[in-house]
Amino acid sequence: MNSGPLWLNGDLHAQPPLLASDRGLLLGDGLFETVLVRYGAPVLLPEHLQRMRNSALALDFAIPGSFDEQIAEAFDALRVATGDSASAALRVTLTRGPGPRGIGLPEEANPSLLVQLDSFDPTAVSVDSAAIIDALRLDPLDPLAPHKTTSALRWVAARQAARVAGADVALLRTIDGDLAEADFANLFAVIDGRVVTPPLERGVLPGVTRAFVLRTLRDEEELVEERPIRSAEVDGASELFLTSSLVGVRALRLVDGRPLPPASPVAEALAAAYARIP
Amino acid sequence: MNSGPLWLNGDLHAQPPLLASDRGLLLGDGLFETVLVRYGAPVLLPEHLQRMRNSALALDFAIPGSFDEQIAEAFDALRVATGDSASAALRVTLTRGPGPRGIGLPEEANPSLLVQLDSFDPTAVSVDSAAIIDALRLDPLDPLAPHKTTSALRWVAARQAARVAGADVALLRTIDGDLAEADFANLFAVIDGRVVTPPLERGVLPGVTRAFVLRTLRDEEELVEERPIRSAEVDGASELFLTSSLVGVRALRLVDGRPLPPASPVAEALAAAYARIP
Repeated sequence: MNSGPLWLNGDLHAQPPLLASDRGLLLGDGLFETVLVRYGAPVLLPEHLQRMRNSALALDFAIPGSFDEQIAEAFDALRVATGDSASAALRVTLTRGPGPRGIGLPEEANPSLLVQLDSFDPTAVSVDSAAIIDALRLDPLDPLAPHKTTSALRWVAARQAARVAGADVALLRTIDGDLAEADFANLFAVIDGRVVTPPLERGVLPGVTRAFVLRTLRDEEELVEERPIRSAEVDGASELFLTSSLVGVRALRLVDGRPLPPASPVAEALAAAYARIP
Repeated sequence: MNSGPLWLNGDLHAQPPLLASDRGLLLGDGLFETVLVRYGAPVLLPEHLQRMRNSALALDFAIPGSFDEQIAEAFDALRVATGDSASAALRVTLTRGPGPRGIGLPEEANPSLLVQLDSFDPTAVSVDSAAIIDALRLDPLDPLAPHKTTSALRWVAARQAARVAGADVALLRTIDGDLAEADFANLFAVIDGRVVTPPLERGVLPGVTRAFVLRTLRDEEELVEERPIRSAEVDGASELFLTSSLVGVRALRLVDGRPLPPASPVAEALAAAYARIP
């Protein structure tokens, strides 16, 4: 639950005095990262903060001064305040902050930096079944596609459609019909002995765990292809797995109610590699 | 400025205690309406609240009990608190409220209803020039297209792209290339003596002012067509105008730097009709 203390713009709050004029609230005008905390340490934190910096630069968000140091300080303060961060989810939210009415950018940057730490057990999250949701299509040319933004209602709607269909997560298509990604996770398939994932050019999020998986596979000289995945290929795939920072590498067991092969050696090896990140 | 008092869940606040766990802030999981207040009265308020109710139903948002009464009470309280509401913008925001971490819907609905009133002068807003932004394309099949949501970063980005191009507002295309709408305004053209606007099936917002304009034109037995507008038609249009609740009916003077004909009798007549709404 996000009911614990949080850190906002330098201070720790039990109930924070968030401004209702914050564009994060009014316009979804924000960026966020969620980071797994394991044995008290955030996993791949520099990669997450670099992605946020990249997105901030692309979308004209101001980055607060001493950004990395502020987040480290926030994490330490929250760790002490919550008492238990052995297994937790760290969320960093950067919004454009309060501003005048309307969608035009404020003349003066006044970003809000919000850090939250919640206890989180990845093994309690079920990621076994997926439903392909034909609505909510991704545009490969969408300039917002590479950015993890708080304008996330389409992911909320996709997840809800999957739940209504009896599945744990949604798989989404592009407007061209190829499979692109899951709601807040990247998609991989093992097809004819090769590990395949859609390239970033298909409008998928540049996932931190996706990049870790690609590095790991290439280091081990596995055959990897970044290319579109056609939905007809799902039936012939020997594995289908998802990657996300919070749940790691997770093999799907069912897609649209059809079972996948029970063994998933590639996903298991990658999950083990993810678990070994210091 | 949104720095004045506001009404949240039944109480008037100078600085409201918004929960940082509100899904409106974290996930853009909210709906909103902006309503013009003229001579102290909200214009077409029932139509705005009906659209919000329609969207809430479609997207599984709970509507707080006594919804209309609460908003009327909030408006009255804010009018007294701000002292001047002769010309103002009333904003109603409904979020899914606080909930557990993640994109899945909370098991128990706990919506946040936020009402804000800011002094606003429509004549101070420049809506003379538009830039056609080729990125940020609309998907006509997007199930979220009919809903005015707080996941609005794409509109923020579109407006910013237009400003960088030296224009006041952005005109957006669908993935099929036809012109659909402006950033937070609907688009009309006068072509060969007919008033043309893209149908809702092109993924445009069902604007309250758009509906008022269509009713007005049909009542006066003007020739109206709801059909796609090809961008090649812009050059031959005798008028191009935008409709939005806050700025009303506004003729464009320039599109991508090219001037439109100086006279805009249709837009002017509609602007006058909009100004006469009691």
